[in-house]
Amino acid sequence: MPFLDTTGLRRFDAAGLRKTNLFQTEHLFCDLYGLEPGQSQKLHSHAAATKFYFVLEGRPRITIAGEAREVSPGSLAFAAPGEPHGVDNPGTERALLLVAMAPNPNRPASGGS
Amino acid sequence: MPFLDTTGLRRFDAAGLRKTNLFQTEHLFCDLYGLEPGQSQKLHSHAAATKFYFVLEGRPRITIAGEAREVSPGSLAFAAPGEPHGVDNPGTERALLLVAMAPNPNRPASGGS
Repeated sequence: MPFLDTTGLRRFDAAGLRKTNLFQTEHLFCDLYGLEPGQSQKLHSHAAATKFYFVLEGRPRITIAGEAREVSPGSLAFAAPGEPHGVDNPGTERALLLVAMAPNPNRPASGGS
Repeated sequence: MPFLDTTGLRRFDAAGLRKTNLFQTEHLFCDLYGLEPGQSQKLHSHAAATKFYFVLEGRPRITIAGEAREVSPGSLAFAAPGEPHGVDNPGTERALLLVAMAPNPNRPASGGS
C-alpha cells in the first residue's frame, strides 16, 4: 500500500521509545518514533548508512556527532555514516519524529509493497 | 551542518515546482518540494531507487503506480523501484512536501556535511 496517513499511526509506549514502521524497500526504511517525556534512544552509529530525523511533534533533543539540540516541529537532523546519533525527550509533552535510514539493513527481497 | 529548520526553507517559484535540497549523502538525498496551485511534477520512475513524499502543507495530489490521491499533512506515499510517480497541486493553497530518495543518484563522494 503506497499511501499512508501517519496521523492515525501515532504510537507511544510507557515502557520506552515506540518505533512504528511505515514502509521499507531494499533501499530504505521509514519509521515513526514516539517518545513519552523522559524516554530516549541511546547514542549509536551505523558505519555504512545515513539516517535522518524529522520532528513532527514536541521538543525532542537530537544528538548528532556530539552536538545536542532541542528542536521543534519542522526541524530535521541527519547522521552521516559513522556519526553517533540518538534522540531523547527532555520535555513535558510527547515527541513524534519521522525517521528514515538508507540503505535498509533489513533489505527485504521484494519492492516492499 | 546536521541540523536544519525547514520552517525557514519554504520556497516557491511562480515558474514551476521548486525543489530545495536539504541535505544529501552517498546514500540518500532529501528535498523540500514547494508547489503553487496548478503546478506539478510529471510522472517518472527510477529503476533502482525508492522515493517517498511526506506532506507538510496543503492538499497535493500524489500519483503512485497509477493510483492518484489528494492527501493532507501527515500523509506519506512511496514509490518502490520502477513505479511511476509524480505530484501535482490541484488545490487553491500552496503545497509543501518533504521528499527523500535512496540511493542518491548524485552520490557525492563525501559524507555530505
